[in-house]
Amino acid sequence: MKRVYNFSAGPAVLPEEVLKEAQAEMLDYRGTGMSVMEMSHRSKAYQTIIDEAEADLRTLLSIPENYKVMFMQGGAHLQFSMVPMNFMKNGVADYIVTGQWAKRAYQEAQKYGTANKIATSEDKTFSYIPDVSNLPISENADYVYICENNTIYGTKYWNLPNTKGKNLVADLSSCFLSEPIDVQKYAYLYAGAQKNVGPAGVVIGIIRDDMVTEDVMPFTPTMCKFTTYTENGSMYNTPPCYCIYICGKVFKWLLNMGGLKEMERRNREKAAILYDFLDNSKLFKGTVVKEDRSIMNVPFITGDLDMDAKFIAESKAAGFENLKGHRSVGGMRASIYNAMPKEGVEALVAFMEKFEKSVLK
Amino acid sequence: MKRVYNFSAGPAVLPEEVLKEAQAEMLDYRGTGMSVMEMSHRSKAYQTIIDEAEADLRTLLSIPENYKVMFMQGGAHLQFSMVPMNFMKNGVADYIVTGQWAKRAYQEAQKYGTANKIATSEDKTFSYIPDVSNLPISENADYVYICENNTIYGTKYWNLPNTKGKNLVADLSSCFLSEPIDVQKYAYLYAGAQKNVGPAGVVIGIIRDDMVTEDVMPFTPTMCKFTTYTENGSMYNTPPCYCIYICGKVFKWLLNMGGLKEMERRNREKAAILYDFLDNSKLFKGTVVKEDRSIMNVPFITGDLDMDAKFIAESKAAGFENLKGHRSVGGMRASIYNAMPKEGVEALVAFMEKFEKSVLK
Repeated sequence: MKRVYNFSAGPAVLPEEVLKEAQAEMLDYRGTGMSVMEMSHRSKAYQTIIDEAEADLRTLLSIPENYKVMFMQGGAHLQFSMVPMNFMKNGVADYIVTGQWAKRAYQEAQKYGTANKIATSEDKTFSYIPDVSNLPISENADYVYICENNTIYGTKYWNLPNTKGKNLVADLSSCFLSEPIDVQKYAYLYAGAQKNVGPAGVVIGIIRDDMVTEDVMPFTPTMCKFTTYTENGSMYNTPPCYCIYICGKVFKWLLNMGGLKEMERRNREKAAILYDFLDNSKLFKGTVVKEDRSIMNVPFITGDLDMDAKFIAESKAAGFENLKGHRSVGGMRASIYNAMPKEGVEALVAFMEKFEKSVLK
Repeated sequence: MKRVYNFSAGPAVLPEEVLKEAQAEMLDYRGTGMSVMEMSHRSKAYQTIIDEAEADLRTLLSIPENYKVMFMQGGAHLQFSMVPMNFMKNGVADYIVTGQWAKRAYQEAQKYGTANKIATSEDKTFSYIPDVSNLPISENADYVYICENNTIYGTKYWNLPNTKGKNLVADLSSCFLSEPIDVQKYAYLYAGAQKNVGPAGVVIGIIRDDMVTEDVMPFTPTMCKFTTYTENGSMYNTPPCYCIYICGKVFKWLLNMGGLKEMERRNREKAAILYDFLDNSKLFKGTVVKEDRSIMNVPFITGDLDMDAKFIAESKAAGFENLKGHRSVGGMRASIYNAMPKEGVEALVAFMEKFEKSVLK
């Protein structure tokens, strides 16, 4: 068995320990005589799996008692609709557009009410986070929406917006569980699992009690109402059982690693290795304003499309997978989520150094 | 490793061969150096997986060229909303209510227009399928809706309704791929995977070309529009990759078994073993009108709640799992999907015979 260094932006690398456990349990989960895939979601064994997943997530993020955890389906894209359908009581929301997914969320919200674009970084290909300390928040805004880490562009809010008392709603998909956060700063946050947590097919939501109401838009599908999840322990219907089981294993792995403070230390260390190299390279350079750099997704270019293509081809041949940038921007991108070991980043930098030497000689 | 006989109604037993393959490929899918869970959905390797899944499904069901295949999320419950949001052009639809899930679909449709209950079997606890040969189909009905196999009650439409020229929309979740069907009789059919096909978290839809239009209700979430799937090969956003991969393996297993005609033969053989026993038992009896019996879900009772409980406890101790009936009806239910071997049904009947003898002596 050969394992590559997988820099995919998502679905993305998972901890090898987690995959090995799942492999061992595939035909017989702990003496039940069946796979978790075959298990009734109403069984005691599965209830324990989902309960432990929630409890471990609560521990990892120190989730306060007045926040509920939800396991949902449909990806961040279904959240783009669920957020306005559930939260637009006045029919008004403010969006900060810092990348493709924030833009999609903003566009989708326009179906449901007045979505205001109160700031954007589209003028410079989303290569920075706008100043969000004093934005023109709408007086009757039901919420202020951000995408906290921009997977495609490699930017991250290191300071949350000043919402002037309005509810903050945030898509954390590509930075979820990469560092500790203060959950209380958010009215609602969610994350697609397939970046830093588990397989594609599950979205995790963390919602403050008072945000969960039956007062939603009248046409809201039952599966798009947050109450459907909060009132039924995410099991109104059959949840994506196996995906949640893998997420639960990742949560335990994170706890074993020392929790999110330790993960942040590791993630910063890994990111620094790559950014330091980029800042000193004569061939490669980062594409993002320094103070807004993500520690999860690191885009870079040579400035020469043919050279980029050559690098992508040669790195792939050398066992570094998925370094090609998103189809909408080109260039390269290394996603270095929790499960990417430091050795992977060091090996990448060593390869980049060698490549640079070979082409600049 | 011990494997039990798992009679769960869903999530349900999967072919052991499929689980073994998935186990072997867990850390390194065919030399890619990664798990399918870690694989970019935009990679060639994953594209091949989803393309083969669709192609094999098309072969299994002889899906005509003018039908599209979609892989979606949200379970049948999200379909309950998607169907009216996409198909109610006149705002009218006719529902035949033969169980809990048809009822939920009917109730959900009322959010979106006039849903008419044109027939029901609720008067006798859904223990039969109404005569559907000459129902009062609404003149301007956009579609006629059925749930073809009723998982909880164990009934099955052996004749599809006479829709008098209207579009037939059907939930096939618990009979999908149990027998050949004539796809052309349906305008749209769908099935949650977790009964007869794969893990929970993916819904498969098969839709006739002309049913896919942009003319949907204006508030329809992008992820609830069928065009979002048909125009993007089910990859507008990240699909539930691993679940689709397992479904694909099940499709190949079905082809290797001889296809759906052979599966139907096996399924009828298995069901006959159990029904013949029930029809001759002095203790147990089936709960469904004979001609409407499902060959996938077989509910039965003793007529004595304490005796039912005793049977459920003793069968579980003997390695027969999930024989308890749905919480809404009680009694027992044996779900005998494709992956339940004949030996499992024979062993169950042998156990029931022994139990009967021991309590009636």
